[in-house]
Amino acid sequence: MRLGAIEAGGTKFVCAVGNEHGHVEEKASFPTTNPEETLQLVLSFFQDKRIKALGIGAFGPVDVKADSPTYGTIGNTPKLQWKDYALLAVLKEKLGVPVKLDTDVNAAALGEYMHGAAKHAGSCLYMTVGTGIGAGAIVNGETVQGYSHPEMGHLLIRRHPNDAYPGKCPYHSDCLEGLAAGPAIEARWGEQAQKLYQQEEVWRMEAHYLAQAIMTYTLVLSPEKIIMGGGVMKKEGLHNMVQQELENLMQHYVPLPDNYLAAPGLADNAGIVGALMLAKDAH
Amino acid sequence: MRLGAIEAGGTKFVCAVGNEHGHVEEKASFPTTNPEETLQLVLSFFQDKRIKALGIGAFGPVDVKADSPTYGTIGNTPKLQWKDYALLAVLKEKLGVPVKLDTDVNAAALGEYMHGAAKHAGSCLYMTVGTGIGAGAIVNGETVQGYSHPEMGHLLIRRHPNDAYPGKCPYHSDCLEGLAAGPAIEARWGEQAQKLYQQEEVWRMEAHYLAQAIMTYTLVLSPEKIIMGGGVMKKEGLHNMVQQELENLMQHYVPLPDNYLAAPGLADNAGIVGALMLAKDAH
Ligand SMILES: Nc1ncnc2c1ncn2[C@@H]1O[C@H](COP(=O)(O)OP(=O)(O)O)[C@@H](O)[C@H]1O
Ligand SMILES: Nc1ncnc2c1ncn2[C@@H]1O[C@H](COP(=O)(O)OP(=O)(O)O)[C@@H](O)[C@H]1O
Ligand SMILES: [Zn+2]
Ligand SMILES: [Zn+2]
Repeated sequence: MRLGAIEAGGTKFVCAVGNEHGHVEEKASFPTTNPEETLQLVLSFFQDKRIKALGIGAFGPVDVKADSPTYGTIGNTPKLQWKDYALLAVLKEKLGVPVKLDTDVNAAALGEYMHGAAKHAGSCLYMTVGTGIGAGAIVNGETVQGYSHPEMGHLLIRRHPNDAYPGKCPYHSDCLEGLAAGPAIEARWGEQAQKLYQQEEVWRMEAHYLAQAIMTYTLVLSPEKIIMGGGVMKKEGLHNMVQQELENLMQHYVPLPDNYLAAPGLADNAGIVGALMLAKDAH
Repeated sequence: MRLGAIEAGGTKFVCAVGNEHGHVEEKASFPTTNPEETLQLVLSFFQDKRIKALGIGAFGPVDVKADSPTYGTIGNTPKLQWKDYALLAVLKEKLGVPVKLDTDVNAAALGEYMHGAAKHAGSCLYMTVGTGIGAGAIVNGETVQGYSHPEMGHLLIRRHPNDAYPGKCPYHSDCLEGLAAGPAIEARWGEQAQKLYQQEEVWRMEAHYLAQAIMTYTLVLSPEKIIMGGGVMKKEGLHNMVQQELENLMQHYVPLPDNYLAAPGLADNAGIVGALMLAKDAH
């Protein structure tokens, strides 16, 4: 079955055609400018692709409730041109196929759960540490939704004793994202994360923060596997440093699964494969 | 349909007979001593009750995976006589009926979700603040399970600036339970919580800690409703104080549902009604 997938991100829209087994046949990427411009490019990509359904992993906040009249509409985003944009409704009408949408991180979690590093696990969490921090989770085979979608990047964490950086989050200053996302690393140390590989204290502090988040996710969700991706996690050895910090914090309070923390099995395709899985379920 | 329910707690086992609508017909309570003694009392309660199935909400750690060979067996508990006790298997064999088990807090969450304060909500979290702190959650209509069950009481939180008390948790010292459960309040202030109603600083500090936990649960699970019960929550006005602190911490980052924090709708019956709902699904 030919399916369409969109990873609707803040800087680019990745579009793909693939199948219900998560196989990606063709992929293209368009800059996120204003809705009219971006959607025109997206629509022309899908125009002659004869897809049977579409799945979308979208930046948020976005209405993820399938029974809501504003399902798939972007919420109160700082990208003002996209605020209240009915992303799902527009695509559904123009393409004439069923569309299913979830958050970008929930889609990535679903991709990794079905076909990636968590394909043998009964539950998982996908965390991205990049320009922002976010996470999505699969519980009892489904993505976590409630009143809205989770926003796991803004946890309140404990400051590292050597950290004087005030934090970068416009809402909470020194929440997890405010202290540990790529831009916070850059602002604190004066260089981009990828240029700080030689400075061990950078990564010890980073692991200190990320391990607190992993501990929280573990205590609240008890996932079988946690996949950590995003630009910052490209630093070699960081997964292991987080694992060690996690064990220090947890003090054997709950047993941790073997190979608990993993890099994405689908590399940069987790979101797109997840969106294909959403398309498979669209009706 | 006549169903049996057990709330297996650390100090007592509450047993009940009721029906699939959550109606409790008869209830009795037995002290938690050693497994043989306690189970004998439990079995004699159910002996002539002609129940068709049994649901159990159990203290943990306990194996909650229905497909596991040790389903319903108590794990590594400080109550050494109960460690490795096959609670579910023994009851199933002696009573000859299907048995379903979940954690005590998941059962309470299920009870409140089906018949209590969250009966009109699509998802919920139940938190108890008593001798310990724990929480259970309903996501997509089911209790949260993963590698094991959640252990939401041991979150790492930020210390109140005026709090010099080191914390009471044997694993983490100053985690949420270590700082904010009833015994921590008593140890810090020198009196039981129920005797400290006149001291406002006690409750401001308590709200400071509980609101951090509620913020975390909100960001990770996005429940439609959070029910806060347990002895400590009997302090009048505490729910409101937590709500105010939560709004301060959250800074409007995510919208909160109206009447977000509630007292249990089923009073002390949340766990038992939840166990009846487990019995309804046992097979
Ligand atoms: N190889 C790398 N090692 C460490 N940090 C990196 C690396 N590549 C990118 N980053 C950091 O990751 C952030 C970008 O995250 P990324 O996941 O690539 O994009 P986005 O989150 O915008 O989708 C930047 O702050 C950048 O400094
Ligand atoms: N009315 C009350 N107000 C405040 N705290 C209370 C009240 N009643 C009990 N507590 C505190 O709650 C704790 C007991 O919690 P409870 O939920 O009653 O039992 P358990 O958690 O053992 O099931 C004790 O620390 C006690 O001091
Ligand atoms: Zn924040
Ligand atoms: Zn603890």
